[in-house]
Amino acid sequence: MLPNVAFDAADLAAKDRAHLIHPWVDLGLTKDADPLIVSAAEGAYVYNVHGQKMLDGIGGMWCVNAGYGRGEIADAMAEQARRMAYFSPFGMIGNPPAIEFAARLTQYTPGDLKHVFFTTGGSTAVDSALRFVHFFNNFHGRKQKKHIITREYAYHGSTYLTASVSGKPADRGNMDLETGFIHHIAPPNPYRRPEGMSIEAFCDAKVKDLEDKILELGPDKVAAFIAEPLLASGGVIVPPPGYQRRTWEICRKYDVLYISDEVVTGFGRLGHIFASKEVFDIEPDIITSAKGLTSGYIPLGAMIVSDRLYSTLTDKAGRGQVFANGYTYSAHPVSCAAGMANLDIFEREDICGHVRKTGPYFHQRLTELADIDMVGDVRGSHFMVCVECTSDKKNKTVPPAEWNVGKRIFEKCQEKGLLARPMGHLVVMSPPLIINRAQIDTSVDILRQGIIEVMDDLKREGLWK
Amino acid sequence: MLPNVAFDAADLAAKDRAHLIHPWVDLGLTKDADPLIVSAAEGAYVYNVHGQKMLDGIGGMWCVNAGYGRGEIADAMAEQARRMAYFSPFGMIGNPPAIEFAARLTQYTPGDLKHVFFTTGGSTAVDSALRFVHFFNNFHGRKQKKHIITREYAYHGSTYLTASVSGKPADRGNMDLETGFIHHIAPPNPYRRPEGMSIEAFCDAKVKDLEDKILELGPDKVAAFIAEPLLASGGVIVPPPGYQRRTWEICRKYDVLYISDEVVTGFGRLGHIFASKEVFDIEPDIITSAKGLTSGYIPLGAMIVSDRLYSTLTDKAGRGQVFANGYTYSAHPVSCAAGMANLDIFEREDICGHVRKTGPYFHQRLTELADIDMVGDVRGSHFMVCVECTSDKKNKTVPPAEWNVGKRIFEKCQEKGLLARPMGHLVVMSPPLIINRAQIDTSVDILRQGIIEVMDDLKREGLWK
Repeated sequence: MLPNVAFDAADLAAKDRAHLIHPWVDLGLTKDADPLIVSAAEGAYVYNVHGQKMLDGIGGMWCVNAGYGRGEIADAMAEQARRMAYFSPFGMIGNPPAIEFAARLTQYTPGDLKHVFFTTGGSTAVDSALRFVHFFNNFHGRKQKKHIITREYAYHGSTYLTASVSGKPADRGNMDLETGFIHHIAPPNPYRRPEGMSIEAFCDAKVKDLEDKILELGPDKVAAFIAEPLLASGGVIVPPPGYQRRTWEICRKYDVLYISDEVVTGFGRLGHIFASKEVFDIEPDIITSAKGLTSGYIPLGAMIVSDRLYSTLTDKAGRGQVFANGYTYSAHPVSCAAGMANLDIFEREDICGHVRKTGPYFHQRLTELADIDMVGDVRGSHFMVCVECTSDKKNKTVPPAEWNVGKRIFEKCQEKGLLARPMGHLVVMSPPLIINRAQIDTSVDILRQGIIEVMDDLKREGLWK
Repeated sequence: MLPNVAFDAADLAAKDRAHLIHPWVDLGLTKDADPLIVSAAEGAYVYNVHGQKMLDGIGGMWCVNAGYGRGEIADAMAEQARRMAYFSPFGMIGNPPAIEFAARLTQYTPGDLKHVFFTTGGSTAVDSALRFVHFFNNFHGRKQKKHIITREYAYHGSTYLTASVSGKPADRGNMDLETGFIHHIAPPNPYRRPEGMSIEAFCDAKVKDLEDKILELGPDKVAAFIAEPLLASGGVIVPPPGYQRRTWEICRKYDVLYISDEVVTGFGRLGHIFASKEVFDIEPDIITSAKGLTSGYIPLGAMIVSDRLYSTLTDKAGRGQVFANGYTYSAHPVSCAAGMANLDIFEREDICGHVRKTGPYFHQRLTELADIDMVGDVRGSHFMVCVECTSDKKNKTVPPAEWNVGKRIFEKCQEKGLLARPMGHLVVMSPPLIINRAQIDTSVDILRQGIIEVMDDLKREGLWK
């Protein structure tokens, strides 16, 4: 049941080109582009402004976890906006939805992660976490312990600082980044491990990378290691088994804080509200969350801090000490009301249970695509899977950028009624978590057909030999 | 007509202390604090969880410009959330509310500021603006032209980068900041000008500060000057007449971009949707906006860029070039739908006209407080006014921090039914813009009484001599 709203598609497209700056767009193409304008959505489907219905394999942007058209989230937002749309959270001022949602979240966090700082999304959650780490070490007189270790192909956000701890090579062109206290180690990508190396030996090597970097910088200088449990936007990189736990143990060994960035992996995408403990057996010092936190219905992020850290700040030593960080929209009552309605749905419908049951089917069906010549790797877990294309399967060769493999597959699939997210030569699938088996089958069928057609086109154009 | 919701105040307070981290809180006081929990609001009033009704002199946090309880904003959010709560804005993907709101905003922007990049609030708007400036200069091969000039007592946000271009001394304790390419000049605060100096001579000196700094660094090295038209959180500092226009001219002279941070001054607070041109006669290269943009009902920010800049990126030269910056919640459809409903209210009720008419009354009534011994200065414009307390009017002495002047006044006023924002020894008043004359009179009466009672208390305690 979709509201019947008519749009003037041509007028919207013209206004889009004239006035809306899109993130991560090829600037030279914007003036003549025909934008995809998404104007309606229901369940696992979105509709463009021409009325075309498409299965949303992207989940908005890894975020519409509870699916589209959830009236109860809309109602919760409206009710809160009528009752009390906003008030400052600064100092000891609070509002009921923020307080209740913080308390409810801590029922799902591992260990003693009991203190919640709300922000406006993932970037501001990670930015706050990194600033908190610096504040924490300054507070405790460890003013040299400031270096942050991260990984190439990580993605942690788009503020200056969070972009700097990210590591996608494509995002660095013409952007200035902080380099003084940030250090990147190699990504734990088994697909790209040296030929002949066992997965166990590869894990040893990647764990050693972290320990080596800590020792190189000096443990007294390293403040934190930040890591997504699976590297999401960097290409759904699934580290070898044990990697997360062993890197966490290394951090403990050297008194280095471990920040687990669960913006993508949280809220059910791997079958749990938070994956750190349940899936990877780690108890991070800080978890960052966003996206699924509200199923994307409204901006909200969170940094969640352990009592082990936080309680050292709030006894007498903290008198007169202020963590001078926060946003007008920290603890936004409407965002938190939406977050609670979203969590209600997760609990009532056992969405995590559905993912644990159906996610392996989704993953397994997508791995069947590995028989296609152009598919080099299919990797991921549950509702977070990536298909890596190659121009030479044996040598795992990355297809030339000019082939536009990802973009071509996106367009083929879109024609056929599926939105899949292109990232260079990768195609990422991260659908709403309410997707069912029939919809999974349709998605995989379309994706297979799309990839094969692109491969055929490349052959016909003489590019694929 | 307020929804009748009963809260367990003690339970909320306990959960708040246990689980919610507040921005800018005295950490050592949090464990035993009795939080102010705001649970309902209507028009210019908010209610705490005990049912106490208070005039909101803070406007949420300079943001609830259209006032509380606006059902049409709530409805617009809910309707959009039902129809299409979210879809990625990355690449050439858009949604109707974001496109329409971008187009409508540019009807109000000065000059050729026609390109809108949406973010999640003021911090991310400014962070994006600064990253855009760096990208722009890299794109055009001016890789050395990166330095940013800002002012002490500026406030531009709370990400690592935007906190670094901010300049409130109190926010620097134990926080790490970027210093390599950021430079602070003195604030243009007439109250603190050298004794005997005319306001005109003071303006000359402050304009010269900017020019000197540009020449010291080298014009080929300075990328941008960022400035709030009035410095808001730094203490409502009103620069001397002509300062904004003359500093803007200096920037033009040396090919330095001018970023006008209108997060607070925009959306009616000074009587116009944007104040840069209408009030201060400048055409900035970039304007940043947030807060009043949605009247605080939902997180949203915007960086608005001139066509003079943007069009150099989108012709053939921009092919393959990507401004690798943006947020999952950039161009959020629900946020933009709320923004349009808010703008509808502004237009229909002529809120800017009301501010132009009633704002001077608000300001004038508050200036009457200057006859109180403890009031050193009352400054501001329209619905953005600050009362600066002093322990020695003649010498403009700042009262000792231990006196807690701001906090005491806040508490006295709260008892009497007014929320006024304390900042050290300052008290800031920035009410919803729909406040009427009777409410203004009540606010000023309470504030006068509160200040006098605090002064009497200080005398009784032997602190005030």
